[in-house]
Amino acid sequence: MSGPGMTGWVTVAGLGPGDEDMVTPQVRAALAEATDVVGYIPYVARVAPRPGLTLHASDNRVEMDRANTALAMAATGRRVVIVSSGDPGVFAMAAALFEAVEITPQYLHTDIRILPGITAMLAAAARAGAPLGHDFCAINLSDNLKPLDVVEHRLRHAARGDFAMAFYNPRSASRPHQFDRVLAVLREECEPARLMIFARAVSTPDEALRVTTLAEARAEMADMRTVVIVGNKATRRVGNWVYTPRSAVAP
Amino acid sequence: MSGPGMTGWVTVAGLGPGDEDMVTPQVRAALAEATDVVGYIPYVARVAPRPGLTLHASDNRVEMDRANTALAMAATGRRVVIVSSGDPGVFAMAAALFEAVEITPQYLHTDIRILPGITAMLAAAARAGAPLGHDFCAINLSDNLKPLDVVEHRLRHAARGDFAMAFYNPRSASRPHQFDRVLAVLREECEPARLMIFARAVSTPDEALRVTTLAEARAEMADMRTVVIVGNKATRRVGNWVYTPRSAVAP
Repeated sequence: MSGPGMTGWVTVAGLGPGDEDMVTPQVRAALAEATDVVGYIPYVARVAPRPGLTLHASDNRVEMDRANTALAMAATGRRVVIVSSGDPGVFAMAAALFEAVEITPQYLHTDIRILPGITAMLAAAARAGAPLGHDFCAINLSDNLKPLDVVEHRLRHAARGDFAMAFYNPRSASRPHQFDRVLAVLREECEPARLMIFARAVSTPDEALRVTTLAEARAEMADMRTVVIVGNKATRRVGNWVYTPRSAVAP
Repeated sequence: MSGPGMTGWVTVAGLGPGDEDMVTPQVRAALAEATDVVGYIPYVARVAPRPGLTLHASDNRVEMDRANTALAMAATGRRVVIVSSGDPGVFAMAAALFEAVEITPQYLHTDIRILPGITAMLAAAARAGAPLGHDFCAINLSDNLKPLDVVEHRLRHAARGDFAMAFYNPRSASRPHQFDRVLAVLREECEPARLMIFARAVSTPDEALRVTTLAEARAEMADMRTVVIVGNKATRRVGNWVYTPRSAVAP
């Protein structure tokens, strides 16, 4: 028996890229203890129903509603898991939860835990070889919350610093031309032979991996289920693998 | 029965930051099938001995020897897991393995798999809140394979692009003063109130988390078991948590 506010908690848990064998035991344990699971429809669909568990699936782009729902339920004693794909701290629900807590400070008393998961760029990198084996950066290309000129500014600094790059949310139906602009900026900053990896739906039945060069890359190679990796100056192929050596090229 | 070259393989597996509940089931399965486990002494020590399994623990800084040992054993039909802490593709053994394959092309025929793990920066971020909730980069501060001027060049671009940053291998006994130089560069590029997190041995019994500012940061706060996270311009505290909002500050 749990009374209001006595035992409630919110855990934000990363389900990894899709393969159930990449879900950590600590995430499984949190799901087993939960009374409620909150999240975007396809992520909640990955949680098996059971007696005593209520599934709250919601559409995309309602992250703040979802965070507030979870916090309000925890305040009444519910044990709530917010599910994210990948890692919840990488362009996912953890930041949204803290935004909600900041807006409604009484939620600061909530028992909150963030449980990491296998994030998409690292699952994709593992399938391709080791393209992120040296210094790298992760950039969310979605412009929902970020103007395109910020994206462009970061791309140029990432290229000039010779970071490998991983792009999340590279392209969607609502912004089909943005990734063309990203490719144009990369072509100004990097050589045509620069290796790129388009990794779609890694670890799921829909997985598709394409290795190409910046010269050959086309925006149509990406969709919302794709993570795009751009190598650094030293990234190379060995057989069918792509890897970045551990030693750096001089600046 | 396995004949030479018939069923051998090399799997590079990420053990995560330390907590056994963060090891994925696919990594557990690979360890269960292995005849040999190869790796740095403290990582091999995390693998339970069993009949039929040979443990090959080696010292640090012999990554190429370790990769060649694993590839040579696989060629004789052994099933070899190279263990890394964290994720094998992030400043760990996956890149070293492909360097070894490139040098000895007959190893291209080896059945190789890379299995991702929870990398230290994401485990640390989860403990702190969501400091990597917006665009970020990961930089290995070890100068074993990279001159310090490359590190400095990357730090400046990361700061000017307003990336949050995660530093691996920030400090060691053999280079005690390097992290002072890193802090000096950051102080030239970022405001004194910039938030920093020193996360030591996350998810182990030795875990220690310290949140401070760039003004208050001291090199002695880091050692080789520490991951250091530097927020971006918008990173803030909410209660005891540190998070980076999903929306960007203009460049």
